[in-house]
Amino acid sequence: MKSLTRYLTFRVPARMDFVNITSQVEEIVAESGVREGLCLVNAMHITASVFVNDDEPGLHEDYKRWLEELAPHDPARYRHNQTGEDNGDAHHKRQIMGREVVVAITAGRLDFGPWERIFYGEFDGRRRKRVLVKIIGE
Amino acid sequence: MKSLTRYLTFRVPARMDFVNITSQVEEIVAESGVREGLCLVNAMHITASVFVNDDEPGLHEDYKRWLEELAPHDPARYRHNQTGEDNGDAHHKRQIMGREVVVAITAGRLDFGPWERIFYGEFDGRRRKRVLVKIIGE
Amino acid sequence: MKSLTRYLTFRVPARMDFVNITSQVEEIVAESGVREGLCLVNAMHITASVFVNDDEPGLHEDYKRWLEELAPHDPARYRHNQTGEDNGDAHHKRQIMGREVVVAITAGRLDFGPWERIFYGEFDGRRRKRVLVKIIGE
Repeated sequence: MKSLTRYLTFRVPARMDFVNITSQVEEIVAESGVREGLCLVNAMHITASVFVNDDEPGLHEDYKRWLEELAPHDPARYRHNQTGEDNGDAHHKRQIMGREVVVAITAGRLDFGPWERIFYGEFDGRRRKRVLVKIIGE
Repeated sequence: MKSLTRYLTFRVPARMDFVNITSQVEEIVAESGVREGLCLVNAMHITASVFVNDDEPGLHEDYKRWLEELAPHDPARYRHNQTGEDNGDAHHKRQIMGREVVVAITAGRLDFGPWERIFYGEFDGRRRKRVLVKIIGE
Repeated sequence: MKSLTRYLTFRVPARMDFVNITSQVEEIVAESGVREGLCLVNAMHITASVFVNDDEPGLHEDYKRWLEELAPHDPARYRHNQTGEDNGDAHHKRQIMGREVVVAITAGRLDFGPWERIFYGEFDGRRRKRVLVKIIGE
């Protein structure tokens, strides 16, 4: 069994935004030399997500508005913010969008459908955060 | 390490519906010969889900009504639909229900609790779509 | 390839609550002897979740209130409850919070960011339920 672990670092200028990280993950898959296996990609922070969806700017605007409806930023809504934080909403948005994706590696490549792309989802940006990529297989 | 990759194809007649795919996944696990490992099952399309829950028709009706409340179909709501699509809602419903499940294989079988079943969740049906099943283990 | 399978059992006194299970999972990782691999942790029941987030009581109160807004307990709302159950809401809350997490094992330990902790999320408590921990790697 082969394995490879890599960490990606982001500092997203907006509070909420989505970054297409597919090509970075593809490079790590190539580096691993794994032909058949699994690739885990997860946010290492609890106010961020990794998810698979479409690289279409209108959809990303839709997601932002929808997540703001489901879990508004308004700091007064969240008991969590009594700890001195103002990111209670981000902990909720991240649960909707998910922490991680597991992607199959087949014949040395991410085994994706036609429109699948991997995104880093930031909900409490303007600081340095990390994403973990772990590959196991043969 | 052993691995096996298979693709399931669906053409669901309704816009939104759920299909129990547990027995199809079990057959692939048997075919793989893996006794201890992991089984990834994921939608390859970004307007569909794979999830684990109960095979109970009333619950499925509840899910459909709830998802329609959280992300109504109404095409005018979504900037994504300005690209010519009418499936903006489906990209949102899929995020609630999830892209994938990872299931343990123990002693050659899916290691499930008493009511766990795997479903394909379609949110933009009436066209051909695929699900990936990837097994690794020994 | 090494593998290890363990089952954790819970009987949460409240209908809805969150239990930090990180140390229990860490012990299983140590027992496995796996240095590089993946650790799957999933609820084996369809009215419960396993998720990663912050061990902060205010946040957990926020989650409970938010989940109750998104999927109220009110038994009359759910067709599922016509089967004689009163836990239709729990099947919905679990979809928001997720069934499982997959965590990387690096150098023999859960490869976590600074605040990541694993929680069992109960939405229909007061009965015995199980969580599966499956580790594969080398």
